[in-house]
Amino acid sequence: MKARSYTAIFFILLIISISSSYAKMRKEYKPCKELVLFFHDIIYNGHNKANATSAIVAAPEGANRTILAGEFHFGNVAVFDDPITLDNNLHSPPVGRAQGMYLYDTKNTYTAWLGFSFSLNSTDHQGSINFVGADPLMNKTRDISIVGGTGDFFMHRGVATVMTDAYEGEVYFRLRVDMKFYECW
Amino acid sequence: MKARSYTAIFFILLIISISSSYAKMRKEYKPCKELVLFFHDIIYNGHNKANATSAIVAAPEGANRTILAGEFHFGNVAVFDDPITLDNNLHSPPVGRAQGMYLYDTKNTYTAWLGFSFSLNSTDHQGSINFVGADPLMNKTRDISIVGGTGDFFMHRGVATVMTDAYEGEVYFRLRVDMKFYECW
Amino acid sequence: MKARSYTAIFFILLIISISSSYAKMRKEYKPCKELVLFFHDIIYNGHNKANATSAIVAAPEGANRTILAGEFHFGNVAVFDDPITLDNNLHSPPVGRAQGMYLYDTKNTYTAWLGFSFSLNSTDHQGSINFVGADPLMNKTRDISIVGGTGDFFMHRGVATVMTDAYEGEVYFRLRVDMKFYECW
Repeated sequence: MKARSYTAIFFILLIISISSSYAKMRKEYKPCKELVLFFHDIIYNGHNKANATSAIVAAPEGANRTILAGEFHFGNVAVFDDPITLDNNLHSPPVGRAQGMYLYDTKNTYTAWLGFSFSLNSTDHQGSINFVGADPLMNKTRDISIVGGTGDFFMHRGVATVMTDAYEGEVYFRLRVDMKFYECW
Repeated sequence: MKARSYTAIFFILLIISISSSYAKMRKEYKPCKELVLFFHDIIYNGHNKANATSAIVAAPEGANRTILAGEFHFGNVAVFDDPITLDNNLHSPPVGRAQGMYLYDTKNTYTAWLGFSFSLNSTDHQGSINFVGADPLMNKTRDISIVGGTGDFFMHRGVATVMTDAYEGEVYFRLRVDMKFYECW
Repeated sequence: MKARSYTAIFFILLIISISSSYAKMRKEYKPCKELVLFFHDIIYNGHNKANATSAIVAAPEGANRTILAGEFHFGNVAVFDDPITLDNNLHSPPVGRAQGMYLYDTKNTYTAWLGFSFSLNSTDHQGSINFVGADPLMNKTRDISIVGGTGDFFMHRGVATVMTDAYEGEVYFRLRVDMKFYECW
């Protein structure tokens, strides 16, 4: 009688153990952390040296580095140091800097390739988040990879959904970045 | 008697449970997904504007952006938007675009550093795959890292083995990319 | 009596099994592998072609590619092929090459963004390690992400702490890289 009740407990525990194990093997798609931030890019155009946060540093033959190239800017590489804010206001207090590069890489539409980092330094978040991915600008939302992080984001991985929140001529754009981390440590 | 047979079942289940747990801890080297694709790069050389899929956008002092630099192209950066095909035929229907950059980074042999993405858009695959790594071009095969993905390749990681499948002067090359994913979600 | 002792064994094993499972879910912060290496960068300045291991390949409008740009080199992109050594001596036998690029990305202090790989080829280590991250140069130590690896570093991930071990004018610098791998396969 006693042995039977132990056996029952055993099977219950075993089922819990196996099913939890299975859940891990499948890995779950619910983020373990989420964060939404905005960053603001003001590209140098020859007249805004004081305000500009990015600069064209490379261009294809025939193009210069003051004006974005023809053919959908194909071949332009820009380096940036953009303020990050909690909301969509350029003048909100920055919580960090978005730093790295983007390059325009299609001749017949706007697409970019991004390699950059968020360096966060606020009361809420300290550390860096590293991004790599393709950015087909004409899509409402684009997914890029969060390939690593440090500090509060130690070893994190995830997917960031990027949206163009504002676009003013070829001088200012604002990106909204919805980060979903699926590996949090 | 009954207790004994339950006990036997228990040990069998326990062994299965422990060994499967152990297999996970070791992590297995069998890919959870495999994919072979080709991409085709036609570099702009001053005469092929209509066909070119890539352009030299940066070069060291003394070199221009029409012709690849001397010293094994050291310091050249190229931006590309190359068609991806299922086989080695440039004229096969593309299943996506390989977009990003490569840079030549040795003075006494051909090596490159790659940062690019596959943007796949076919009936079989929707999504992006992000690559980073060193490419010692003179080796028959080179391994680079798959650092993330989106869509069908959500959160994937793996290793891609790159082979130069064709090389015609300094105008066209074709790369075969054998992707092996070891984290699939 | 016999059933009872089996039951006792069962609970002991179950506790071991559950606690080991829990340890995995939390993931541990102890590295599974550690490695310290140095690399040496000699930037081309117009007079040291034979020795230089890196070159400025991109610069903002108004700057050239022989001398690092003003404003904390904002917008300069350098491509490098630097020897890696086991100690801090430039003339020690190299165990591999650090290859890729760095770009300066702030106007009012020194910060860089790094995308590069270690290609190791020694008796102790064969394979590549891929790095991405922000490098705020004025900090004593900076953490960047190890986003993948091949060969002996197959699928590895981790964090690398970078320190400027020497800095001589704007011609030579030496970085110490303390790699801690937390996913080792």
